[in-house]
Amino acid sequence: MAACIFCKIIKGEIPSMKLFESEKTLAFLDIGPLSYGHSLIIPKYHGAKLTDIPDDQLSEIMTVTKKIASASGAENYNILQNNGRAAHQEVDHVHFHMIPKPNAEEGLVIGWPAKKGDMERLKSLCEEIKAKM
Amino acid sequence: MAACIFCKIIKGEIPSMKLFESEKTLAFLDIGPLSYGHSLIIPKYHGAKLTDIPDDQLSEIMTVTKKIASASGAENYNILQNNGRAAHQEVDHVHFHMIPKPNAEEGLVIGWPAKKGDMERLKSLCEEIKAKM
Ligand SMILES: [Zn+2]
Ligand SMILES: [Zn+2]
Repeated sequence: MAACIFCKIIKGEIPSMKLFESEKTLAFLDIGPLSYGHSLIIPKYHGAKLTDIPDDQLSEIMTVTKKIASASGAENYNILQNNGRAAHQEVDHVHFHMIPKPNAEEGLVIGWPAKKGDMERLKSLCEEIKAKM
Repeated sequence: MAACIFCKIIKGEIPSMKLFESEKTLAFLDIGPLSYGHSLIIPKYHGAKLTDIPDDQLSEIMTVTKKIASASGAENYNILQNNGRAAHQEVDHVHFHMIPKPNAEEGLVIGWPAKKGDMERLKSLCEEIKAKM
């Protein structure tokens, strides 16, 4: 997509701190990092949300993410992929964050407002979702 | 692993709200959800962190995650995989969360303490990580 900053990075029209590149996938450092080593792993195929990316373009994305996590040397790290503004997505081209968590101040900060699930509601939800697959 | 709760779910020794199962992958509803539809997608291979899972066990994990996200009907959602206690991991068997974000109160809460990266430090870090791949 012409206006997409990540498509421009893929084409080399914007410079990036490239870590890895293959036919389907590109990985580079985030220049506004949450911690040093914070990297982005993206499919070269342009799509805003995970559900917009064809299956065959996703087959190596986690092995590349794993490779980056391993090379970063991080012991604790989060893999995060946001879909939609409400879910904190800022660039509308699917990207996986690999974010080292070296200490409490740096890295991703997670709030976890879990609730005890209503088992009856979960059971019917389970059937509902399965029916859509 | 004998003591692992997710390995027990895989073997059927503990019941789960199963959504999808294949040779390598299992998906089920989280019963302490952040939002309704919150699901877990796991490789059947036991490993604590992403870097512990062999590449061939990861090839379909994102296509299954995508399938679950799609069937959930969520418009906004986060994919999250935590590695290590400091990074909020609670069960030591790799699991991807698919967490719908229907509103501000439900779903994942993200804190984003980004800093402007020091470009010189990022450049040398980039070379350092590439040398380890
Ligand atoms: Zn793009
Ligand atoms: Zn296990």
